[in-house]
Amino acid sequence: MPNIDIENIPPISLEGFSHKSVSKQCDKYWFFEKSQESFPGQSFGLEIDQILFHIESQYQDILIFKSTNFGNVLVLNGIVQCTEKDEFAYQELITHLPIMSHPSPKKVLVIGGGDCGVIRELVKHVKDESVESITMVEIDDMVIKLSTKFLPEMAKYHNHPKVNLIIDDGFKFLKETTEKFDVIITDSSDPEGPAEEFFQVNYFKLLLNALDAEKGIVIMQSSENIWLNIEYLRDLLVKARTVFTNVKYSQCYMPSYTSGQLGLIIATNDTEKDLTKPLRQFSVEKEVSLFKYYSKEVHSASFVLPIWANQLLNK
Amino acid sequence: MPNIDIENIPPISLEGFSHKSVSKQCDKYWFFEKSQESFPGQSFGLEIDQILFHIESQYQDILIFKSTNFGNVLVLNGIVQCTEKDEFAYQELITHLPIMSHPSPKKVLVIGGGDCGVIRELVKHVKDESVESITMVEIDDMVIKLSTKFLPEMAKYHNHPKVNLIIDDGFKFLKETTEKFDVIITDSSDPEGPAEEFFQVNYFKLLLNALDAEKGIVIMQSSENIWLNIEYLRDLLVKARTVFTNVKYSQCYMPSYTSGQLGLIIATNDTEKDLTKPLRQFSVEKEVSLFKYYSKEVHSASFVLPIWANQLLNK
Repeated sequence: MPNIDIENIPPISLEGFSHKSVSKQCDKYWFFEKSQESFPGQSFGLEIDQILFHIESQYQDILIFKSTNFGNVLVLNGIVQCTEKDEFAYQELITHLPIMSHPSPKKVLVIGGGDCGVIRELVKHVKDESVESITMVEIDDMVIKLSTKFLPEMAKYHNHPKVNLIIDDGFKFLKETTEKFDVIITDSSDPEGPAEEFFQVNYFKLLLNALDAEKGIVIMQSSENIWLNIEYLRDLLVKARTVFTNVKYSQCYMPSYTSGQLGLIIATNDTEKDLTKPLRQFSVEKEVSLFKYYSKEVHSASFVLPIWANQLLNK
Repeated sequence: MPNIDIENIPPISLEGFSHKSVSKQCDKYWFFEKSQESFPGQSFGLEIDQILFHIESQYQDILIFKSTNFGNVLVLNGIVQCTEKDEFAYQELITHLPIMSHPSPKKVLVIGGGDCGVIRELVKHVKDESVESITMVEIDDMVIKLSTKFLPEMAKYHNHPKVNLIIDDGFKFLKETTEKFDVIITDSSDPEGPAEEFFQVNYFKLLLNALDAEKGIVIMQSSENIWLNIEYLRDLLVKARTVFTNVKYSQCYMPSYTSGQLGLIIATNDTEKDLTKPLRQFSVEKEVSLFKYYSKEVHSASFVLPIWANQLLNK
């Protein structure tokens, strides 16, 4: 891994900057997210104010830019991972869905999550004395370092005393660990690149191995939504259901993800549990003070799909 | 209005085709939706397979193209109105929210709706014997004609015996009519262009005038969503609440609208009514046979907003 002095990254001039996702239109520079494999024929674009950082790291192509209207934006392998404008939606939903569904989520494991947004959300429950320890296993140290610099509101708790940060391959960690966790959150990038093995049956088995068998809950981003590739989603749910008895699909609605939505897969072997209803609920006042996206109503509504998609994924 | 032979529209070559929303990238032609006023710094793009039609009509710039992955696309003044891939989401929600909330929606008025998608949805309730007459007032005859040609699945019922099609300014129609309707659906384009006056207090007053005072329900597209301009939405709801005692905000989630979502404003002076719950409900089997997007669960979930937006719009 190149040794980068994060504090002294030189400015990058847009003039002459070359990247397959960046183009000039009418004297303005735009980032366009395109993928011939994952979402052919559609593209989301953000106007660029300034390029902050670009490198091809050992694991992936990392691009960070300041957009004109969405704050700073982190892009891995040409795909938007988060923007400062709307990151809270995804970070809150992937975190609070399992945490509020679990009776006592003391030990939490995060696989991936290098931007540290999930940690920020988990720390809210540390303060609330439900979560006692957070282990995060991220393969790419550089994503964490860059997030502390360019996404400071997301990456403010990676040094929190309850956080145990491990720089390693999450797959390898799960194979080797003998610990059991109450909640495991897989906050990976998409299957193209280093995260490919997170979307296979074998990964679900490893998750189960590291999970408290009775009440444990796992959640992962599905890399898809119902409008893009619902057959892929159905297959992914089938894979999850070979390992877990209770599997549900939830969606997060936010502008910077492809089609404005991203799916989450949540699963447990607690067959009695209704994952679509939070087991623990906060008062409205407490919700307003802690959250911008999540509420008990948002929890349940995130599982409601258009009837065509519901038929395909849940019947 | 130019006299166009809809059946014999000549093919348009992309080579040399000039439109502010169309550009060539890496040997492919793309449509990009941009608006410096309404959504600066973000853009949704669709790859173009073929330009089907373009004209500046008396009222607006009309562009129709065949996309590579979203079917045919209707664009008015540079803004996507519908794509064949996902149009059903919006058409179903704006229609079935008020219809399923009303005890007996016999007389329905549609203002705008030139693509005739709302009529298609209303006809489902004609067959079901709840809706008895549909009046549609569309200002631009050409949009209807073009939709019958290029969006045939949407515009298949404009000649239905229960449909009374009026080519006129909806605002003027409401001023002059003495009829009373059970449900009024305003399916307009955005405030820029001929639809500007649909987003003012005066328009809400005209709607109320043409509405059955006791049980009548109106719905309109808000032209915005919570991520774009929530202050504008709040103002629009305040305007609606000066005329109606019971006003709610609902969102539709679909890829081809800006940010992947579009808001609807639904209102009535039936203060007791809970608009977020359908008064009439179909069995799941009937829902599956009639709808692709709408269900009783989707009805309620469409009113659930992220907690920050809920605080701003509903408190």
